[in-house]
Amino acid sequence: MTTIGPQPDWRSWVESANSADTHFPIQNLPYGVFSPEPGASPRIGVAIGDFVLDLSELEAEGLLWCGKKVFDHSTLNPFITLGRAAWRDARQRIAQLLRDSEPALRDNVMLRERCLVPSTRVQMHLPVQIPGYTDFYSSKEHATNVGKLFRDPDNALLPNWLEMPIAYNGRASSVVVSGTPVQRPNGQMKLPDQQRPVFGACRKLDLELEMGFIVGAQTPLGTPIPCDQAQEYVFGMVLLNDWSARDLQAWEYVPLGPFNAKTFATTISPWVVPFDALEPFRVAQPSQSPEPLAYLQQTGEHAFDIHLEAWLRPHEGHDETLLCQTNFRYLYWSIAQQLAHHTVSGCNVRVGDLMGSGTISGPEPGSLGSLLEITLNGREPLALKGGGQRGFIEDGDAIRLTGWCQGEGYRVGFGNCEGKVLAARSL
Amino acid sequence: MTTIGPQPDWRSWVESANSADTHFPIQNLPYGVFSPEPGASPRIGVAIGDFVLDLSELEAEGLLWCGKKVFDHSTLNPFITLGRAAWRDARQRIAQLLRDSEPALRDNVMLRERCLVPSTRVQMHLPVQIPGYTDFYSSKEHATNVGKLFRDPDNALLPNWLEMPIAYNGRASSVVVSGTPVQRPNGQMKLPDQQRPVFGACRKLDLELEMGFIVGAQTPLGTPIPCDQAQEYVFGMVLLNDWSARDLQAWEYVPLGPFNAKTFATTISPWVVPFDALEPFRVAQPSQSPEPLAYLQQTGEHAFDIHLEAWLRPHEGHDETLLCQTNFRYLYWSIAQQLAHHTVSGCNVRVGDLMGSGTISGPEPGSLGSLLEITLNGREPLALKGGGQRGFIEDGDAIRLTGWCQGEGYRVGFGNCEGKVLAARSL
Repeated sequence: MTTIGPQPDWRSWVESANSADTHFPIQNLPYGVFSPEPGASPRIGVAIGDFVLDLSELEAEGLLWCGKKVFDHSTLNPFITLGRAAWRDARQRIAQLLRDSEPALRDNVMLRERCLVPSTRVQMHLPVQIPGYTDFYSSKEHATNVGKLFRDPDNALLPNWLEMPIAYNGRASSVVVSGTPVQRPNGQMKLPDQQRPVFGACRKLDLELEMGFIVGAQTPLGTPIPCDQAQEYVFGMVLLNDWSARDLQAWEYVPLGPFNAKTFATTISPWVVPFDALEPFRVAQPSQSPEPLAYLQQTGEHAFDIHLEAWLRPHEGHDETLLCQTNFRYLYWSIAQQLAHHTVSGCNVRVGDLMGSGTISGPEPGSLGSLLEITLNGREPLALKGGGQRGFIEDGDAIRLTGWCQGEGYRVGFGNCEGKVLAARSL
Repeated sequence: MTTIGPQPDWRSWVESANSADTHFPIQNLPYGVFSPEPGASPRIGVAIGDFVLDLSELEAEGLLWCGKKVFDHSTLNPFITLGRAAWRDARQRIAQLLRDSEPALRDNVMLRERCLVPSTRVQMHLPVQIPGYTDFYSSKEHATNVGKLFRDPDNALLPNWLEMPIAYNGRASSVVVSGTPVQRPNGQMKLPDQQRPVFGACRKLDLELEMGFIVGAQTPLGTPIPCDQAQEYVFGMVLLNDWSARDLQAWEYVPLGPFNAKTFATTISPWVVPFDALEPFRVAQPSQSPEPLAYLQQTGEHAFDIHLEAWLRPHEGHDETLLCQTNFRYLYWSIAQQLAHHTVSGCNVRVGDLMGSGTISGPEPGSLGSLLEITLNGREPLALKGGGQRGFIEDGDAIRLTGWCQGEGYRVGFGNCEGKVLAARSL
């Protein structure tokens, strides 16, 4: 397989990018929107080792040029709109500038000083203006576990699930960047011992460990994306925490699906890993039976080997507890199948659309991507590392998702997707 | 009650605005985005009688000024963002300029020539850039009818329905303006005599007669809109046809709600009627039992007396058949309650958000807002005026929604919300 852009054996003159456990070696080069210091105007950068490379400075210097100004912007959308050839050219050029053998930036002390900002100093922003957010439900293990808990244990997987990548429209307005505090929602819930619902703070606040991809091109209304072309419409990927209020959800979701249980916040990681950076980690997805209908059939390998973790840092201590270790490759439905299904009705997509994978639970012990599944809806609380236990998330707890692809001697990582839960607004 | 802006007895020097059955008298003044001729750049206008008044020309002339340039734009969003006081000032000023006693525009032949474009000549555009689209389900009659057909006839209304305005997130990308052809979607459907779903053109294409309101101000994440302040967040209203593929919907909607059955197209009328223009038609909404929870309680009258109609023009003839006559006042949940519920979790709203009412069916014969209900899921086809019958919509059929408030001697109307159905994309 040909790797596009930086090769596996490349090294950078940014020393911290060459360590075996950094998420941001020269093989990654994820895009984000950052302020070099809090309050400074947002612009576009790539993460490299312990630094952020300011692409707007390189652009102003003439060292990186895409045919128009796209990096002195507060969202990635203008850059993404340029299209795939431009993404590849830019990636190739940035990798070259960062390669250990290339002096242009390495030996220009003044410019390097302006362009390379320590990661500890920057403020990250939502990387993309998101016109639409769709959340899929593509893990068979998750759908089965939820079906057992919310519906019928004997028919947990609904008959439509194996035939199509089930999804719902999410709320784009409340997608926030990692680090943004998340307020526990208020809402209606139905308690088993009461006739009518009560209103109050959610009692079953949960995470959902997901990944999301960012759509890189628009389509006209009425024009489906064929499954075998779908990957060309993907710009890159992020980690995604689809915060969920399980008690609100159980009461509201029939018949139109989850609404207030999800719309209060969705957190994504600040760095969008280019789809091309994931190419070396492509693997086969789980076998599908029954064979999908023709429009969902694909050739080649469509999953990616991305190791994923979820951690909880409790309000009463500093020790994080590992909640889950799973892998993106467990997903039953591929990104290509998701996009093909989403558009087969004629629905159009737009640059910056966010498509969530759904909770990624795996077949192995310890690979469940939500507390709902881990604690069986709170019935079997999880012991925390520093003592104490959790059925669901408490005020002051912080949830951190992380993930990476393991290369030979390097990792293509996604950084962190974090959020701390604040108490509900008082009534 | 005080009427803000043009008074009921005002008349315009635009003669066609004074006829008793125009939708666009001086008491209305709805905003839209238009090109004075096909291909010309879009700008903002108001409908007045048989004309469109070009507000960008008035702005350039200095006759209408909101503190910044907002009318030479392809969406209403910059104007809406100015806020409620600015909407009222502009409305007052436009009404004054159009009033029969006011010479400034009336007697300036050159300017009038430039500003007043015959409606027959203009091309209308989507009036608003829509960051988010939510569709409610607020007609008790509709929810009951659908429950009978899709679920259990004996427990048609689900227990949560009477406790909250149920809603789902729609797809904003495929909201189109009246006049845009609508392609029949392809998708999966489950036929009763087959084990697995089939893929093909929707066989049960339906309309949903709805109205939508446009959100006029943004809120910060985490800050609910109280029920009694909710109306201040409403800019105006449109007609909305929530095209629905019933066979796709029946197969896909459990458990996450409708998706491909709805995402292929939603049509709205081009003219946004200002919320203030509806003020004289405020009436009490149906009584609510049980009494809503505290956050959904409101004082005063929260429904509007808006007469609504749906018509079908069949592909084989020119005679339109009346499908439905209903009224916005039948809705069980008010706009204020919808907004309060939508945001009570902390979900934020943004300028231009579109909130659909859900299908508006009434208690009377002939007041059902979808063919699903009218024909009992196609089992009892409707006879067309010119001969023939319909269970659902056929290729080449056009659906037209219209509606108005009846004042004394004038109508505040919404114009038309139309779409003609094209054959599905061939497979």
